[in-house]
Order: sequence, then C-alpha cells, then structure tokens
Amino acid sequence: MTAALGVGMVGYAFMGAAHSQAWRNAHRFFDLPLTPRMAVLGGRTEDAVRAAAGRLGWADVETDWRRLVVRDDVDLVDIGTPGDTHAEIAIAALEAGKHVLCEKPLANTVAEAQAMAAAAAAHPELVAMTGFTYRRMPAIQLARRLVEQGRIGTVRHVRAQYLQDWLADERAPWVWRVDREQAGSGALGDVGAHVVDLAQFVTGESLTGVSAMLETFVRERPVPTSLHGLGGTVTPDSPLRPVTVDDAAAFLGRLSGGGMAVFEATRFAWGRRNQIRLEVNGSSGSLAFDLEDMNGLLFFDATEPAETAGFRRIDVTQPGHPYGGSWWPPGHALGYEHAFTHQVVDLVRGVAAHEHPAPTFADGLQVQRVLDAVERSAADDSRWAPVVAPA
Amino acid sequence: MTAALGVGMVGYAFMGAAHSQAWRNAHRFFDLPLTPRMAVLGGRTEDAVRAAAGRLGWADVETDWRRLVVRDDVDLVDIGTPGDTHAEIAIAALEAGKHVLCEKPLANTVAEAQAMAAAAAAHPELVAMTGFTYRRMPAIQLARRLVEQGRIGTVRHVRAQYLQDWLADERAPWVWRVDREQAGSGALGDVGAHVVDLAQFVTGESLTGVSAMLETFVRERPVPTSLHGLGGTVTPDSPLRPVTVDDAAAFLGRLSGGGMAVFEATRFAWGRRNQIRLEVNGSSGSLAFDLEDMNGLLFFDATEPAETAGFRRIDVTQPGHPYGGSWWPPGHALGYEHAFTHQVVDLVRGVAAHEHPAPTFADGLQVQRVLDAVERSAADDSRWAPVVAPA
Amino acid sequence: MTAALGVGMVGYAFMGAAHSQAWRNAHRFFDLPLTPRMAVLGGRTEDAVRAAAGRLGWADVETDWRRLVVRDDVDLVDIGTPGDTHAEIAIAALEAGKHVLCEKPLANTVAEAQAMAAAAAAHPELVAMTGFTYRRMPAIQLARRLVEQGRIGTVRHVRAQYLQDWLADERAPWVWRVDREQAGSGALGDVGAHVVDLAQFVTGESLTGVSAMLETFVRERPVPTSLHGLGGTVTPDSPLRPVTVDDAAAFLGRLSGGGMAVFEATRFAWGRRNQIRLEVNGSSGSLAFDLEDMNGLLFFDATEPAETAGFRRIDVTQPGHPYGGSWWPPGHALGYEHAFTHQVVDLVRGVAAHEHPAPTFADGLQVQRVLDAVERSAADDSRWAPVVAPA
Amino acid sequence: MTAALGVGMVGYAFMGAAHSQAWRNAHRFFDLPLTPRMAVLGGRTEDAVRAAAGRLGWADVETDWRRLVVRDDVDLVDIGTPGDTHAEIAIAALEAGKHVLCEKPLANTVAEAQAMAAAAAAHPELVAMTGFTYRRMPAIQLARRLVEQGRIGTVRHVRAQYLQDWLADERAPWVWRVDREQAGSGALGDVGAHVVDLAQFVTGESLTGVSAMLETFVRERPVPTSLHGLGGTVTPDSPLRPVTVDDAAAFLGRLSGGGMAVFEATRFAWGRRNQIRLEVNGSSGSLAFDLEDMNGLLFFDATEPAETAGFRRIDVTQPGHPYGGSWWPPGHALGYEHAFTHQVVDLVRGVAAHEHPAPTFADGLQVQRVLDAVERSAADDSRWAPVVAPA
Repeated sequence: MTAALGVGMVGYAFMGAAHSQAWRNAHRFFDLPLTPRMAVLGGRTEDAVRAAAGRLGWADVETDWRRLVVRDDVDLVDIGTPGDTHAEIAIAALEAGKHVLCEKPLANTVAEAQAMAAAAAAHPELVAMTGFTYRRMPAIQLARRLVEQGRIGTVRHVRAQYLQDWLADERAPWVWRVDREQAGSGALGDVGAHVVDLAQFVTGESLTGVSAMLETFVRERPVPTSLHGLGGTVTPDSPLRPVTVDDAAAFLGRLSGGGMAVFEATRFAWGRRNQIRLEVNGSSGSLAFDLEDMNGLLFFDATEPAETAGFRRIDVTQPGHPYGGSWWPPGHALGYEHAFTHQVVDLVRGVAAHEHPAPTFADGLQVQRVLDAVERSAADDSRWAPVVAPA
Repeated sequence: MTAALGVGMVGYAFMGAAHSQAWRNAHRFFDLPLTPRMAVLGGRTEDAVRAAAGRLGWADVETDWRRLVVRDDVDLVDIGTPGDTHAEIAIAALEAGKHVLCEKPLANTVAEAQAMAAAAAAHPELVAMTGFTYRRMPAIQLARRLVEQGRIGTVRHVRAQYLQDWLADERAPWVWRVDREQAGSGALGDVGAHVVDLAQFVTGESLTGVSAMLETFVRERPVPTSLHGLGGTVTPDSPLRPVTVDDAAAFLGRLSGGGMAVFEATRFAWGRRNQIRLEVNGSSGSLAFDLEDMNGLLFFDATEPAETAGFRRIDVTQPGHPYGGSWWPPGHALGYEHAFTHQVVDLVRGVAAHEHPAPTFADGLQVQRVLDAVERSAADDSRWAPVVAPA
Repeated sequence: MTAALGVGMVGYAFMGAAHSQAWRNAHRFFDLPLTPRMAVLGGRTEDAVRAAAGRLGWADVETDWRRLVVRDDVDLVDIGTPGDTHAEIAIAALEAGKHVLCEKPLANTVAEAQAMAAAAAAHPELVAMTGFTYRRMPAIQLARRLVEQGRIGTVRHVRAQYLQDWLADERAPWVWRVDREQAGSGALGDVGAHVVDLAQFVTGESLTGVSAMLETFVRERPVPTSLHGLGGTVTPDSPLRPVTVDDAAAFLGRLSGGGMAVFEATRFAWGRRNQIRLEVNGSSGSLAFDLEDMNGLLFFDATEPAETAGFRRIDVTQPGHPYGGSWWPPGHALGYEHAFTHQVVDLVRGVAAHEHPAPTFADGLQVQRVLDAVERSAADDSRWAPVVAPA
Repeated sequence: MTAALGVGMVGYAFMGAAHSQAWRNAHRFFDLPLTPRMAVLGGRTEDAVRAAAGRLGWADVETDWRRLVVRDDVDLVDIGTPGDTHAEIAIAALEAGKHVLCEKPLANTVAEAQAMAAAAAAHPELVAMTGFTYRRMPAIQLARRLVEQGRIGTVRHVRAQYLQDWLADERAPWVWRVDREQAGSGALGDVGAHVVDLAQFVTGESLTGVSAMLETFVRERPVPTSLHGLGGTVTPDSPLRPVTVDDAAAFLGRLSGGGMAVFEATRFAWGRRNQIRLEVNGSSGSLAFDLEDMNGLLFFDATEPAETAGFRRIDVTQPGHPYGGSWWPPGHALGYEHAFTHQVVDLVRGVAAHEHPAPTFADGLQVQRVLDAVERSAADDSRWAPVVAPA
C-alpha cells in the first residue's frame, strides 16, 4: 500500500468534474507511488459544493479556498476556477507548502502568470503544473516522441486549429467565458492557448513572435436563467449582456527553429463540435493529429521508398505507446477524460520523484506571453509582435 | 441519498476491469435510483483476487463463487468469467434471489443458454441481463432510434464485421480464448456474437437462418509463461498447444423482415486492432457505424433533395443523444469503457423499476441460437441452417 | 509515326462512351507502338449510330455488326453491347481475324463463355481481352504488385463489396440491366463480376467454391418513356414490367490458397453511389481499396515496429506507380475513365507485342464459372458449390 | 453541326497538356454552340513544338506567338506560358481581335495585370478569362451555389490551404517556378493564387486587406540536366542556382462582408502531394472541400435538428449538380483534368453568347492585388496591408 497524497480541489464545474474523474481512477489503472486521497472540495456556496462533493467523491468541503489551501490533509491544490482567481489561489497554496495543479490558461495576464511562475521558482521543492491536458493525449505524446527522435527532421510548418461551435448561435447564452474580467480573453485563451501549447510542445520549440487578428462576431448575448454544460437556458425576454472577449483569433507565428506557424481558434465553426487539428511538416516527414480521431496519429515518413510512402494512421493504443498497456487491449478507444487521468499520473509521479513535470508554471507563462503578443499585434494593425522574454 | 445496490462480481480480468470502472463511476455522471456498492469480488486464487479487489475497488473477496452468490450484501451478481462457467453461476445467483448481469456470449451452448433463460423466466422479479455492451455505444442507440422512427424504411441489407488482429501473428500465445472448452468458440462467439447482437438490435429483427464457413488458420500456439492484456509472453521454447476454436467466421443471414445480412468475425485482420463496422441499407436511407470512429454515426436520408443528399456524420455527443448530456460538453469524445457505464446505468434503473432491460437472457439465447446455426451450417457444407426457435 | 490500329466498336451507350474516350486519348498520354484509328462504330439504328459516331469521334458507321467485324479497316473489335450478344460478335470477330476487347461479364452463360474462350484459344495470334476495367485502376495494380512481392504474406481474408444505389428507389425505371435475357443476371454479373475479378487478380488466386444467396427486392418496375444514363423517365402511368434478375448477391468463397472471401453486390445501398471496397488481410500485412478514394491504396505492413505501424494511404499518382508519370504531376487525381485508357494502353501494347494481356477470355470464363456457382448455390439452399473447371 | 472556334495555344508544358485535353474532349461530352478546332500550337523551338502538336492534337505550329495571335484561323488564344509573358501575349491577342484564356496568376505584377484588364475592358466584344481552373470543380461550384442560396448564412470564417510537397526535398531541382523573373512569386502566386480565388469565389466576397509572412526555406537548388513533370534530373555535380521566390506563404485576411480568412500556401508539406483544403463557416452552416476528395463536398446545416445534424459528404456527381449528367453515371469519379474541360465549356458558351464568363481579367487583377498586398505586408513586419482598389 502506497502512502496517500491529499488533494484539495477548488472549483467543480466542467473542469472540476474532469479532474475528479481523474483523481478517482488514476490509481485503478496505473501504478502510482502515492495514492490520491480526495480530501476536500472548495466552492463558495455551501449547499452546492456539498452536493458536488458527494457526486464527485470528495470527502469534505470548504467554502473559502483560503482555508482549503492550508489544511493539513491537503498536500496538493488543484485549481479549476476561472482565470481571474488562479494567481491568488496558486500563490497562496505554494506559500502554504502545497503542490499545485492549475488549469490553463495559467492566468489572465502576463503579470499574474509571472507572479505565479516566480512563486513556483521560489518553492523548488513543490510541483507547480499547468493543466494543458491535451498534451497528455497519447497521440500528442507520440508525436512529440517522433519529433524528438528526428523522424520528421527540422520543423518547417505548423498549422494548428481549435474549432468549436457552441457560440455560433447568436442566441447562445452569456456565460463567464465571454467575460473579459473572469476569462481574460475569449477563444484565444480558452482554446487558442491549447493549440499554442501543443505546437510548442510537439516541436520542442518556442514561438518568438506573432502577427494576429481578433474578432467578436456577436457583441451581446442573453443572460441565461440557468446554467448547464458550457451553456444554459435563455428565453426571448432574457436581458442582453455585452460580450467583452474575442469570439475568434487567428495568428501567424515564427518558431524558434525558424519554422512558420499558423493558428486559429474559434467557437464559431458550425459543425466542429470540439476539433483540434495540428499538423507539423518537417524536412523529412510530417505529422497530423485531429482530436475528432484522438486515438490516431498520422505520420508521413519521407525517407521511405516513394512506392509505398503515405500518411499512416497509427492507432496509438498499443502497449509501447505513451500510457499504452494500462487501459484496455489495443484498439479499444480512449476518450476525452483519459488525458486528465494521464495528467494526474504524471503529476503524482513528479511529486513522488521530486521532479517538475511539464508543463510547469514557466511553460504556462510562456504561453501567456504568446497570448499577450497576439493581443498586442491585433491591437496594432497586425504588426509583428515579439513574444517577450522576461527582463 | 439513494439506497444501495450491493454488487458481487465474479472474474477480474479484462471484463472485470471494465465492469469495475463502470460500477465505480456510473453514479458520478448519472442520476441513479440505487447507488452501486461494490461489495465483493470473486476469484479462485486468494492472493490474486485480493490484489485485484484493492486495485479495482471491491470491499471484500470470495474465493468460491458459490459463497459470493448467497451473500446478504449482494443484490446483484456480475459474471465476467469464461463462457463455460456462466450457466452454473447465473442459475445459482438467480436461485439465490440475485439480479444477474452476465457477460456475452451468454453460454457456450444453446442448452446452457436455454437453462439460463428458463431460470430467468422462473424469476420474473429479478433482472437478468446479457452483457452485449456495444449496444450501449451512443451511436448504436441512435441508430436503433432512427430505424425505429422509420428514417431508413424497410431494412434490405445489413453488413457487419468485427475485425481484430491480435492473433494474426502465428506466434501469438495460446490463451483461454482459443480453447473450445472454456470459450465455446473462437472469433464466432467472442466477437461475432457482438455483431449478431448489434444487427438484430439495430434492425429490431431476428436472424432466421444462416449459411456459414469457419476457419482455423493457426492450429497450435505457444503456451505463454505469463499473461497480460489479451496475450502474454512466449519464448522460442514455449510448448505448443492446439487451438480448438475457429480463428474466423463468415456467414450470410436472412432477417425476419426479409433483408439480407452478411457477417464476418476474425482476429486475423492485420491493422484492424478492434474494428466493428455495421452498415444498414433500408428502402429510404442508410446507416453506418465504425467502432474506430465510435462517437460518430453516418446517416444517409434518401428522402432529401439529391442536390444536398449525402452521408452525414452525426457527432453523437449532443445533449439529446442517447446518454448525451451526462458526460462532457458536445464533441468531447467518449471511449470504449463508457458503454459499460451505460450498461450499469440501464441495469440499475431496470432493477429499481422492476423492468427487464434488454438484452435479456432470452435475447442472449437468441444470439446463441444464431451461433449454433452458424456452426451447424459450417459443418454441413454451408447449407442453409435455420435459427431454431425453442420447441 | 507509328502504324495505325483500326478499331471497330459495337455499342455506344455508357460503355461505348467510356471506351471512345479511351481510344481518343490513350496515345496522347502514353507512347503506343500502334496508334488507334477509330474506324467505325456499329449500332442498329442508323440515325442514332451516326449521331453517336459524330459525338464520340468515329469515322464511319455500320448498322450490322456482321459487316463491321469483317471490314478491312478494322483490326480490333471492341464489344460494348449487352451480354447476350457478346459470344456471337466476339467469335465472329475472332474468326474474321480481328483482335477483340469484350466488355464484362464475358457472356451470360458459362457455355457461351466457353465457346468464346475456345475461339480465342483457336486463334492464338489474336488478342482476346475481357474488359474488367477496374483492374486498371493504379491502386489495384499497385495492390497486385505488393501481393506479388510478398508484402502481405499468405492471403487469409478477402472482403469485397460493390455497392450502388441506382435501383434503391422502387420507382426507378425498368432497363435492360434488370432483364435476365439481355443481362444474364443482375447485380451479380453487372457489378459482382467486377469484385470477383478484382479479388482473384489482386490475390493471384482463384475461387474454388462458393456459398451464396440472391435476392430480388423489387419485382416489377415502370417502363421508362425515355432513357438517359443508367436510368430514364417514368410517369405514374408507366406500365410495369417484371424484373427477372437479382437485385443483390451475397456469397462466401474459398480461395485456392486457402483464404476465405466474402462478397456482396447490390444496387440497393442508399448513399453508396458507386462504391467498391476491397480488403485483403495476409499473414504479414493488409491492403484496402475504396473506389470512392480511387487514387489511394491503404497498406498495413505488420513487419514494421508496432510504435509506428498503421494503415498508410499511398497516393498512387507517383511516377513509379502503375501508369504513373504519364498523366499529371503527383497528387493530381485521376478519375473513373482513366482505367479505360489504361486498358487501351495495355491492349494495344499486347497486340503489338503478340502477347495476351490479362484478363484474357480464359480469365473471363473463370469469373463466369464463379457467377454460375453462385447461382447454383443460391438455388440449392446455399450449399457449397464448387467452381467447376472445364472437363 | 455547329460552327468552329479556332484555337491557338501558346505553351505546351503541364498546362498546355491539360488545356489540350480539354479542347480535344469538351464537345464529346457537352453540347457546345461552337466546336473547338485546335488550329495552332505556339512554342519557340520548332522541333519540340511540332512534336508536342502531334502528341497533343494541334493542326499546325508557330514558333513566334506574334504570328500565332494574328492568324485568321485563330479566334481564341489560350496562354499557358510562365507569368512574365502573359501581359504581352494577351494584350496583343486582344488587340488582334481574339478572345483570350490566360493561365493564372494573370500576371507577375499588378501593373501588368492592370494593363491586361484595361485591354480587356477596351474590347468588350471579346472574352478574356483567367484560368483559375479549380473554380470549375463541381464541388466548388456547388459550394458557391449553396452560399448564394443562403444555406450557410453570413460568412464568418474562411480557412484555405494549398499544400504540396514537390520542393520539400532540398535536392529537388531548380525550375522556372522558383525564379522570380519568370514566375513572379513562388508558392504565393503558383498555388496561393488559387486559394485566394477560391475563397473569394465561394463566398462571393473580396479580400480587403491582409497580414502576411513569406519564407524561403531552401535558398539554392541544383540545376537539372533534364526536365520532366514539375521536376527534373539532378546529379551530385549539378551546379546550384539561387531560389528567388517564396517557398511558402501564410496570411490572414478580412473579407468584404466582415469575415476572417486564413491562408497558407506551401510546397514543403511532406505527404500532401497536391492538397487544397477550403472551409467556410457561416452563421447558419459550414462547407468544407478537400481536393484529395474532389468529388465530395462537406456541408453542415445548422438549421437541422441537433439529433441528426452533421457534416454530410455530398457526392457531387449527381445529374443536378454543376456539370452533372454530362460525364458518367453518379458516383463515377471525375479527376483533375475535368475542371479544364469545364473551363472550356463555360468559355466557349461565353464566346457564343457574347457574355463574359468569370473569372474575367478583372477578377484576375483582383487576385493579383491580393498577392501584392501579401508581399507588401510580408515586407513590412506583417503590418496590415489593404488590398488596393484601382485609382
């Protein structure tokens, strides 16, 4: 029997449910050096947080995250709240000596993210991880592995899109994700951040500059009478409230190795329910991933004889694949939530090994800088905006 | 807080792990009238079953299923052992007044399946369900719904394939699934049974007869020194043991509504890790499903204007879809295991409502009769073999 | 300037148009040892055949094929009429010393096909080719090449489907293709013959026996007032005429190398406009072809490391591919008609080289024997029917 | 018998072969008001042009295009030479009273394109068409039709990529397409021009500004000893010659209706032999096209019930589809070259009807202005560059 790792989680909406599923099940499928104990769930409204704790499997509740982060039975704080609260909670948790897992984007501003990264740097004995969960899709990990092995050579092109359609309907309700104050930005930070992280992770390079445009197609939305999923219920009489974030972002970028990158993030692509497409072309091969086919990775090896060269679809559920062999037999599909479980696995192993599993807060900060450069370029006639490194 | 439903499970290999995941999580995502309590896990080897219980989340263990099925804290017995043991355990459980969920194929022979169905019929107060889990893929449920609504008209064609490749390597190890005594049959019962059930379920019709061929490509296999997943480790010195089941089955069938059906089941289709393809052509439309794209259903509506008619891929994760709205937002993929959770959901609701959720043991018996007809036809020069109804 | 090869063609409907396109253009893209001269087009109705000749590019016309096959300016007779006329025309042409290209199926009966093959054998100085055009899709030729090179090992499974939907509408008009007298059979001979040929060609093996079922879903159809494409115009008052052929065929088969084969041919698969799917699983790899993606071939190589193994889609338009380099740069799609051009290329080269390019009449006869076995089995309770070799 | 339209063509490489195939065959499949007569082929080297004329089917040759454009037997001049010669030839042809079809991009500079458009405007009695052939893919025409019918509402997003890989190999030979003097630009004008035209055509809108980046990955290439296809033969000793054009272009754009557009053009996308991807998201639906599946169009209709909404793949070979019914029965694939035939069909009909079929020279000029804005933005730190309208 392994020792326990006490977990306190703040927030219990969409991300809270996904994280809970991971905490409940990771040790059922993976050998972990520490067994997660779901100690306490934090939320502002006692009844609601208590109901959520029961449903999600948390032993206790706190209505003030300040109490949660200092509890003795909490070794790690998992933050799944809107972005405007990340910095405060994460820094307090680190200062209380707790490991931290923080949802992405790391913060709503570069300044906040910097403070968080500084706090993490000040506590090298603690793990501080950013929740760019899509990295932990087996196909993405395999893509990274192949790039690292030199299987596609020097990266020349990245094209990455995160397309959703849940706001394409003009009558879709106003939710916190369209509020600049809470969310920091719109499609850019919510989904664009993911593809920025994926592009940097898979290539092993950084974006050094961008040229960008942002757009808000629908300027006000009806306030819903109740919330469910990403949306809610609206009536013809629902009052309208301004949308203060971007609905879509598009930007060009340059990678540190010299390659070109093209990004797009939107919630207005009708029919694309939740699609990430990532393609990398190198000097000796290509990789392509589509979240709609998340258990596959396309790989083109240009060193093969032309007669039989072609994009192959690798079913990434084989035993030797990343996270392979722990779930079901080959060919039995994993789903969206499994990436969260993999995140917990790597996080817990990092805690036990006194290592800093990526993406660290520093990695989260780098993404934040890219988002910031996007906003600066978009506000400046799309002029090239360097991704500024810390002074 | 709902009342508890005490569950005892027998067997803890592949199916046991999948069932456990469902029992652990169903009530986290679905409102259930009874809360599953994972009371006891049964297995023959004490150390092994105890380790499995810890890993899978069962409170207690039994090394004799006879004790398990009579325990007071067990309301429902979940059977995930090889087919030769199903009848004995299931009948004992029913006679002990327990609900039963039994893995497919229901039994290794029609006689056993008949006895099981008779036992179930003798206990109408109990739920007795057959674990044809693939029915509970949302896409399959939606397919059934569309057929029921008349969206494709009269069924003319069904083509259904279950293709795997884990035995395509001649040195893949001998496992119980290639042993007639334990498994009853090979690809036919293991995977062919699934596509027979799917074809009957989606069409709402029965197979009335078949013409069949069976084949064993590899007649002996090395006995592994250890087991993992569906396979194990073999050495050049591993002794060989005869394969006593079919490696592949192919058969033609007639549906009760007059349509034609073509089936294929094999473990020798290199590159098809775990693929089910099901296509139904009706008089006014078509449906197609591919397990490699399990969150999609293809639908062709022939009543549409020709200009824009085409197979549409329905992403089946929308709120109105079967089991929709309980997991993640639209477009967030479910995986293989979710069908097991759905099975638990429908089972528990059936228990609470005193209903008999399909597939019942009678449905399982019907599939067994089809498998039997396949074997009779294959042994008789492929001559047409009626699917015999009970005398 | 190469010498000319005078061509006389009989029939000018769908197949006539496709053949004409090939005769007009083959020498524009391929170096041919003889330049086709489109000497004369045969048809019964003078006005119609004259109009067709003008449109299709034939220099002269004949209203009696008997005159056409003996013309001095005709070196090769191309037969594109319904199957009931093939034997008479082809034998007369051979006896007149003309090379022959005959559309498939070679004949409406085994007896006719035997007579044709005998006539061809009696004239070894002449080329007699059967028009199984789909063989000449580059992807199919590449599949054959890979099988021949041993890239997939011993063939274990073939599954082949030819699915169309142009008769799925019960009010689709009665045409000669649903008349047993003219067409010999229905989906079986019209489209099933193609997949039988493809399966035998790609594997390099023969079918030795079959078990089959045939079905006619729609027993009478309205006689159209005018014809166009594969169909025509019907009115509510159109008189009905019996359909005397099968609407669909399904059969199991055994290959000479021991593999299993499953076939399906239908015109009732709504949404499948013209789809051929062919998949071959061998002991060390697999191939898959889909006519809806005719410029691609899927290849799975089981000898590759599992980490990167996967079905690769080979774009078959590269210079080294069959017929590659003669058309457009790589990646520029060929279409349906190009296989007819390739057929002319191989035929003309065969004539010049005094060789017998496959599929010969003997190959056509072998397919006819398979079709005959299918009909015998279907009429005999699906009992296994050997594919009878000639006495 | 219709009157003849005498055609003189200048250039006989890749485009010349494609145009010839169209001129030879258009009237075989379509009812044309004028029958093309392939009068004369122009090229500088007498032997070579004579050989080409024989192979491609042209009656006569000229070694000076100045003589060709004034011949009495030429009614229409078809220009397929590199871009630096377009303006001179086209203007001379118009001044000689000839209709003109000019390959894209219309010219190498805006100034040249303006002169050409002015010459066309000065001769309204003549047809002057730009060869943006991909517009004439049936799927693209259908996409335009659906947008025009309002089936996707207001356009919000366009993403368009033209990806090739024939220069991805650093040792691929130096050809005129990498020479700024002859080609004007690289991937931008060669393939980027196509997707700019497609985006504007399908949406029915214009690009009003862009932000861009250009890149040349491989700065010098070996001079080939002989040419074939798009490439040629090089040896280890081949001298190197500078590449003076872009290898890849990426740019953001704004549509006149307010939508965002993202473009990418490259010849360095290993494995993408010749892929165009075009996706348009509107306020009530989406369209997607992939040249690798050129006979299909994806359409998502957001006004449908969510239960069965999904991207449908429309097989665009039905009789009611653009250019439908003239070729083969439904589902029989067209290829790359068919778009050229459709271009001839629309051009000839335009000539006979005294209309100006799009894309006119004015349309070609508009694309040229976009390309120019791309180059200006790329040279100015990616700053937004308006697409300048004529003074």
